[in-house]
Amino acid sequence: MTDKNNFSGVIAPVLTPFGQDGTPDPDRFIEHAEWPLSDEGGCHALAPFGTTSEANSIGLDERMELLEDLVDAGVEPLSLMPGTGTCSMTDTVILTQHAMDLGCGGVLMLPPFYYKQPSEDGLFRYFSDVIDEVGDDRLKIYLYHIPPVAQVGFPLTLIERLRQEFPETVVGLKDSSGDWSNMKAILDAFPDFELFPGSELFLLDGLKNGSAGVISATANVSGKLMRAVFEDWKADEAEQLQARISAMRKTIQSFPMIPVLKSIVAHYRKDPQWRQLRPPFEALSEAEAKRAVTTLMEEHNFKLDIELAA
Amino acid sequence: MTDKNNFSGVIAPVLTPFGQDGTPDPDRFIEHAEWPLSDEGGCHALAPFGTTSEANSIGLDERMELLEDLVDAGVEPLSLMPGTGTCSMTDTVILTQHAMDLGCGGVLMLPPFYYKQPSEDGLFRYFSDVIDEVGDDRLKIYLYHIPPVAQVGFPLTLIERLRQEFPETVVGLKDSSGDWSNMKAILDAFPDFELFPGSELFLLDGLKNGSAGVISATANVSGKLMRAVFEDWKADEAEQLQARISAMRKTIQSFPMIPVLKSIVAHYRKDPQWRQLRPPFEALSEAEAKRAVTTLMEEHNFKLDIELAA
Repeated sequence: MTDKNNFSGVIAPVLTPFGQDGTPDPDRFIEHAEWPLSDEGGCHALAPFGTTSEANSIGLDERMELLEDLVDAGVEPLSLMPGTGTCSMTDTVILTQHAMDLGCGGVLMLPPFYYKQPSEDGLFRYFSDVIDEVGDDRLKIYLYHIPPVAQVGFPLTLIERLRQEFPETVVGLKDSSGDWSNMKAILDAFPDFELFPGSELFLLDGLKNGSAGVISATANVSGKLMRAVFEDWKADEAEQLQARISAMRKTIQSFPMIPVLKSIVAHYRKDPQWRQLRPPFEALSEAEAKRAVTTLMEEHNFKLDIELAA
Repeated sequence: MTDKNNFSGVIAPVLTPFGQDGTPDPDRFIEHAEWPLSDEGGCHALAPFGTTSEANSIGLDERMELLEDLVDAGVEPLSLMPGTGTCSMTDTVILTQHAMDLGCGGVLMLPPFYYKQPSEDGLFRYFSDVIDEVGDDRLKIYLYHIPPVAQVGFPLTLIERLRQEFPETVVGLKDSSGDWSNMKAILDAFPDFELFPGSELFLLDGLKNGSAGVISATANVSGKLMRAVFEDWKADEAEQLQARISAMRKTIQSFPMIPVLKSIVAHYRKDPQWRQLRPPFEALSEAEAKRAVTTLMEEHNFKLDIELAA
């Protein structure tokens, strides 16, 4: 983290584990969240409560409690970029203020996503009002552009307006559009804006064009390889490494993403409870979970070196 | 309300007013919410915190406080069907339990709408878990089917499963699909299920096919005419009345729906503050608001007889 803001590199949108009663499990959460930040995990920072974290399936209070648990457990707040965007300004302000109170390095903010096709003026006013209400000069917002899920996204003209009005606050964007031409357009238009592709498929291309790193679901299990690309992207072997992580990503995303990641963690932690998801998501069947782990082993020599807690 | 459940007839998804500071305004809210239930208002019941209420732009606590305000003001809880569906099971349970604690006659429940294309099994488990968690035999759930906004909807097979498993609890559905063939299919498949079309365009056709009434945004301002159709749908003049409310509906929805309804209320209450919406929505310009009111007057002889509070 050498830039003027708090984030660069590989960021994991950490999975949220649930106990047998269906509520978020703080112990498993902390144990897992600390791992991506280890040498084996390879990540620079964490983005809890993103799409991969099933954040929108978790209650407001549950989100805040889990974040407090992370900080209480000793995770450096500056390396946390929690998701705080909800449908309502009120709850978004509550989550964002809470994250700032804990000293988080930034927040990843969805646009209000219930009402579809909001006007650009309306979205601009939404973010202006949120920033005013939070009223904290330390606030760093990373816009969360994920049109395949949220449907509501951030057109370039809106990004430009928000940057002009709030240059110290609206500092970056996670682009989960899956559309390289959109990422390239943002990188070209705003060279000092911190763009994080939402998938490692775009990691090397992003870095060559000035991106800040990557925030990828699969960094829950394979951040180390992404970090190698991030650190050596100018080296000859970068293309080869990128080809390797792209191939592995494609295998992983051939399964339902969140269920398969939880299955991988469950397998390597020898903890079947990890397979559980909150409805409306469903866990992979045991057979599918086994197939995923076997395919990753056989085709990509993938093994998760999780040092189990004592 | 003569049926075994608590709702039939014309139901208004009441608008939520905001004060100059942008927070929900309880006084204006109560004043307006009581009006649809008056003789002039014409409604049988209220569905606060629906799409028209900007419910998803309001915070969890704000929703609960406003509902308490309504009940404290003397609105009969059995005539309240508040929206309680959020993206997360946790918050949906909190809002639903709160509504039950206040004695509400039912709740209008969106499916979890962040993650798109959830499986039917996943949605079934979501509602099963919510019903189990709420754990209140009095609970009456009206499913909220509004695919143009929520994207996630209720296919017939899911409705059937939920009805079979929870016959005393899952008792009805608001259909805001705008698709008559879907409403007709539900009415044909489940004759004792309480279907409420989400627009008065389908009021008479619905009633002829066994629907329970209508829950329509415009019932905030024109419930009385809908009530006439509801009460005399077997009479000769019903077709003519239906043609009249359909024509008026079409004029109203030629403007952005929530902004225009707020403008109409603002005009007749002589209270410009009513025009305000929460971002990402924007108020109509004064010129547009005036044009809407004038068009309704000239083309439909529309006038809102609001008896102003002293």
